[in-house]
Amino acid sequence: MRRLTLALDAMGGDFGPAVTVPAALQALVSYPQLELLLVGNHAALNPLLAKTDSVLLERLTVIPAESVITSDAKPSQAIRASRGTSMRVALELINDGRAQACVSAGNTGALMGLAKLVLKPLDGIERPALMVVLPHQKQGKTVVLDLGANVACDGAMLAQFAVMGAVMAEHIVGVTNPPRVALLNIGEEESKGLDPIQQAAALLRDVPSINYIGYLEANELLTGKTDVLVCDGFVGNVTLKTMEGVIRVFLSLLKSSGESGKQGWLMQWVKRWMKRRLMRQFGQLNPDQYNGACLIGLRGTVIKSHGAANQRAFTAAIEQAMQAVERQIPERIAARLDAVLPKSD
Amino acid sequence: MRRLTLALDAMGGDFGPAVTVPAALQALVSYPQLELLLVGNHAALNPLLAKTDSVLLERLTVIPAESVITSDAKPSQAIRASRGTSMRVALELINDGRAQACVSAGNTGALMGLAKLVLKPLDGIERPALMVVLPHQKQGKTVVLDLGANVACDGAMLAQFAVMGAVMAEHIVGVTNPPRVALLNIGEEESKGLDPIQQAAALLRDVPSINYIGYLEANELLTGKTDVLVCDGFVGNVTLKTMEGVIRVFLSLLKSSGESGKQGWLMQWVKRWMKRRLMRQFGQLNPDQYNGACLIGLRGTVIKSHGAANQRAFTAAIEQAMQAVERQIPERIAARLDAVLPKSD
Repeated sequence: MRRLTLALDAMGGDFGPAVTVPAALQALVSYPQLELLLVGNHAALNPLLAKTDSVLLERLTVIPAESVITSDAKPSQAIRASRGTSMRVALELINDGRAQACVSAGNTGALMGLAKLVLKPLDGIERPALMVVLPHQKQGKTVVLDLGANVACDGAMLAQFAVMGAVMAEHIVGVTNPPRVALLNIGEEESKGLDPIQQAAALLRDVPSINYIGYLEANELLTGKTDVLVCDGFVGNVTLKTMEGVIRVFLSLLKSSGESGKQGWLMQWVKRWMKRRLMRQFGQLNPDQYNGACLIGLRGTVIKSHGAANQRAFTAAIEQAMQAVERQIPERIAARLDAVLPKSD
Repeated sequence: MRRLTLALDAMGGDFGPAVTVPAALQALVSYPQLELLLVGNHAALNPLLAKTDSVLLERLTVIPAESVITSDAKPSQAIRASRGTSMRVALELINDGRAQACVSAGNTGALMGLAKLVLKPLDGIERPALMVVLPHQKQGKTVVLDLGANVACDGAMLAQFAVMGAVMAEHIVGVTNPPRVALLNIGEEESKGLDPIQQAAALLRDVPSINYIGYLEANELLTGKTDVLVCDGFVGNVTLKTMEGVIRVFLSLLKSSGESGKQGWLMQWVKRWMKRRLMRQFGQLNPDQYNGACLIGLRGTVIKSHGAANQRAFTAAIEQAMQAVERQIPERIAARLDAVLPKSD
């Protein structure tokens, strides 16, 4: 079994080490091939590691970093003052060849900016993109990108995202036929939408190795009509957050439903049973369950965990990083993109 | 009681007269002040009117229009060939002073283009916007615009939408305090997002009569943090369709949940009862329930019904048109906009 080393920004996220350290230890228990570099403040980390089995500690190294980029910091300022922060040190460990990927639940804007600055885009890629894998109605999964790494995109960038997304659908989701690739638009007719989308469509139609299926509207997000859904970072961010907002409303309605009323014990029991069942079913769409957006297109893999991730969710982000490393995502993306697309300036 | 006359595109929508005629008759029964001009093909309409009470028919006039713009027609072509279509004739009735508003379930793009061509924007308004009123978690409602009338918008247009939205929140939703107005963005910090949004923010901060509260992210769509949410038509369309798509997934999960299994009659009964209850609760978010987007900023009110609207939903769209006329929305918008905002070119 090949060794695999990840750098964790142990101080990032709403809960910092209180979540990242237990999640790290849980991952070490589950994956014997895993080594972790825990980047952060010794004084904050050590108490949480005190009772850990020494065998486990052999695969864990604390890398000191005294400062932290806060979640509410302005990304541009945070990046300028980033030297020595846990997030930056974690990214630099990839550059130094000590880690193969990095996971952080810290400030999203700062992470995207720093990752690009420290790791540099792969040859043939202008801009990294933030990507998630969403479960859909037909029991499969859809790769959606960009989710906010690039607020404005030209057609060439969108086409590059499409190629990167197809690589992810093949190697992360495991789609066996050439993955279906669609552009998110406000109608299905060719004449619809903004110029960059139409330009991307023209580019993608000319790439024989891409199974481009046309435009899809946002109400098809979860219907499984495509394996890859491409949009610019502004629209992607709005789409994902709209989805999360609506799902949270549903889950909260479900939780509070039928709490009043004086029913007999049997009725109460049946209701609780049914609610649990529905929660489980809807829960697959709960943002906590698919934690971890992947920043792709760089020389190294960076996983952005939700800031509010709990231990289970942060462990899921670590697993995503492992998967991306094992499946050599950066290398595959570079090779594919170089082969199929013209470069834009 | 003041008379009120609406023109209905009786041929538009997926079901045409089969839905629009019964909906029209239902509205006439409910609202004695209402007169309707039913625009469409005599041969298609007459059989549906044959058994109608003659007293009701006194308030209904069939206006002949031989052709129909189909739902899948390309808007630009449909507009060029629109003379004599039910949609165009219905809009022209407003221009002729015979109707005060128009309702259509037909081709959205064609309706928006034709409405602008036929009705012309109000003084002080460059572009009409498509608006919906969404129910939110706190039992109130949020005005959201633009939903697709303008795929790209500059800052001045967004600011105009904000002013129009505030008028709608006051006079349609009935918000009594100055309505809170927010811009949809991908973060709450001032530096976030695209240039037009930042320009709109700068304009709105300088308008004392607008209660501008800043940026909101898409996960706040249904939380009731704002009375008016403004975005460009591309983003608005994607947001609304994402919401609709997610809600449909939930409703279908709910419908199909627990359908298998061999339980006793009591269990079955309790489950059915609980499902009905949940459906009712979630149903307020069902797109069918708030049918009717309002195209505002024109000399006359145009309501766009969902193409797939059933009789109940199309009646809701008629009611929306009545409300907009009664509350003199076009006049109020013109007055307010002229007073508060500089014009852009």
